[in-house]
Amino acid sequence: MSWTLGPSELDDLARGAAILGTGGGGDPWIGRLLVAEAMREHGPVTVLDPEEVADDALVVPVANMGAPTVMIEKLPGADEPVAALRALERFLGREADATMPIECGGGNSMIPLIVAARTGLPVVDADGMGRAFPELQMETFHVYGLTASPLAMAGDHGETCVFDTGRDTVRLEDLARRVTVGLGGGAAIAEFAMSGSDLKRTAVPRTLSLALALGRAVREARAEHRDPVAALGEAVKGTIYGHLRVLFRGKVTDVERRTEGGFAQGRAAFTSMDGTSGLEVRFQNEHLAALVDGEVVCLVPDLVCVLEVDTGEPITTEALRYGQRVAVVGIAAPAIMRTPEALAVFGPQAFGLPFPFRPVERILPV
Amino acid sequence: MSWTLGPSELDDLARGAAILGTGGGGDPWIGRLLVAEAMREHGPVTVLDPEEVADDALVVPVANMGAPTVMIEKLPGADEPVAALRALERFLGREADATMPIECGGGNSMIPLIVAARTGLPVVDADGMGRAFPELQMETFHVYGLTASPLAMAGDHGETCVFDTGRDTVRLEDLARRVTVGLGGGAAIAEFAMSGSDLKRTAVPRTLSLALALGRAVREARAEHRDPVAALGEAVKGTIYGHLRVLFRGKVTDVERRTEGGFAQGRAAFTSMDGTSGLEVRFQNEHLAALVDGEVVCLVPDLVCVLEVDTGEPITTEALRYGQRVAVVGIAAPAIMRTPEALAVFGPQAFGLPFPFRPVERILPV
Repeated sequence: MSWTLGPSELDDLARGAAILGTGGGGDPWIGRLLVAEAMREHGPVTVLDPEEVADDALVVPVANMGAPTVMIEKLPGADEPVAALRALERFLGREADATMPIECGGGNSMIPLIVAARTGLPVVDADGMGRAFPELQMETFHVYGLTASPLAMAGDHGETCVFDTGRDTVRLEDLARRVTVGLGGGAAIAEFAMSGSDLKRTAVPRTLSLALALGRAVREARAEHRDPVAALGEAVKGTIYGHLRVLFRGKVTDVERRTEGGFAQGRAAFTSMDGTSGLEVRFQNEHLAALVDGEVVCLVPDLVCVLEVDTGEPITTEALRYGQRVAVVGIAAPAIMRTPEALAVFGPQAFGLPFPFRPVERILPV
Repeated sequence: MSWTLGPSELDDLARGAAILGTGGGGDPWIGRLLVAEAMREHGPVTVLDPEEVADDALVVPVANMGAPTVMIEKLPGADEPVAALRALERFLGREADATMPIECGGGNSMIPLIVAARTGLPVVDADGMGRAFPELQMETFHVYGLTASPLAMAGDHGETCVFDTGRDTVRLEDLARRVTVGLGGGAAIAEFAMSGSDLKRTAVPRTLSLALALGRAVREARAEHRDPVAALGEAVKGTIYGHLRVLFRGKVTDVERRTEGGFAQGRAAFTSMDGTSGLEVRFQNEHLAALVDGEVVCLVPDLVCVLEVDTGEPITTEALRYGQRVAVVGIAAPAIMRTPEALAVFGPQAFGLPFPFRPVERILPV
């Protein structure tokens, strides 16, 4: 069931991962270029299905940490995530058997592929968010009892830092965030080192192959002059996500965005083409809530995705601009992300939103 | 030449170390209590003269890092510096043969004694500042080519963090300071792990025994109704410090103090008892400059020490209060702290002061 991922699939993968990134997770094109270069030098990457990973294997997820608004100016490097992996291996006194993404996103789905290409390690087709989230503890790994500590961080001048806060992942997030800011707003991390059996119990499975399928669906629909948004809806059906709803079509009329405490925070306003209806999307790096004319239509952890209406290309929060014509869709999060334990960590209340969670497919029945 | 330090000497040592701490280096009484408790439980501590340390021995200095204004409310613990030492040993893959202070100060001269008592390691009679300074790179270890990295930090909930910034000690200071703030404003560190031969080349020697001698001189003068300030002058003679000058006698009339970026920053104003003359002392955790009626009389790295005029007890910057009657003295820094390399790192310009360094004994010839 393992498969090989080569340079020709990176465009589709990056596009699909950016859709699942719900406005965050890093810029899709920079990450793609870094993977392409690593693959050119070292060859394609082996992707393992989670069920193929040995129970006693050591899996080390890697990612970039930082505000996306910073990452598009301070480009992530290819050395840092490998340095973070090596620092964590040194701390653990054991070498990794595989790497893995911690979240879906144009950037953070790519980082493990860089590491995989450069080290020869396989990458596991799974992650710890099933989308992108702004904070380290917002991972299914954490929800289901794993600890992010020890966490290794690497900066672009060869700096490394290994944090160990025991079971206190919120404290870890705070300390690591401070060092990220000190390293210029972005750094590579390796964390949540786990066994194969823990991986199978806690990860959101097959999100790399889902991203690839979503990205491919958009490209093929475009080539065949079909509606890319409808094609996405078809691609989601039959996966553990299952449901896609078109929340709104219109244009960007206002974006309020500030970089605060290492996050890109704010809200975006959209107006329907006939001017009669409005959509508000709130974000903290990632989209958290969508309200149409003041009524909640999609709430975190369900995915709010902003797409160019004609092409289906995802738009990250830092790329939102006045006048863009968009379709905003809601995608149901899989069951593992909607349990009471999961909602306590990354549901609406965890972000200070005053709305109780309701599944998007129940707010908007077909 | 090694000697044993027991609980009965701690009062003198803490007093003398606080004098050398030039207003910073931590509160002398909290540190003393922690050492006394550790000695009560584990016995006295062996102090090694630097010349006794084997060239290939591993010496690991330990300290607390943080704003003294925070440390008097968030008391340092006895577990953290041992945890920092152990984290650094783990990173290095080697056990320490001795510990050492990184600076003189009521707090930071005590931390290695806690570690020594609890681990059974000897402590070396030397340090890396010959006084106290606010930033990590302001150490003779750094001036003479050693690297502070790797640095291990430990917080009061068992958190550890190991930083490695290679030769960039200024970057290390910045990252470690950020984490210190995240840990509540204070944390224990182990850094500048070095060989015995590097220790002999770069450390300011015999500052523990000097602190003990200064503290004893003040106590004995007081018991014998002699002037404690004059007794201090006698005690400094014949050491590598050599010169003490009385800069001012008067009372505290104003203190401007703010905790900013993890530092206690500000200035204190003093007025002579007859009201005709004024002294200004500028500080960043430690005293940096003394100006009498606008004229510089003592400049960093020379030591500006504020003492209660009647008792000779040192007053830290956070303990300065309106109306206190004080003697302010200047003590010449030893030659190893006045080289061009040393002044580039912790001379007046390094603190943004617009005064060129001049030795206190030349500004104020006897």
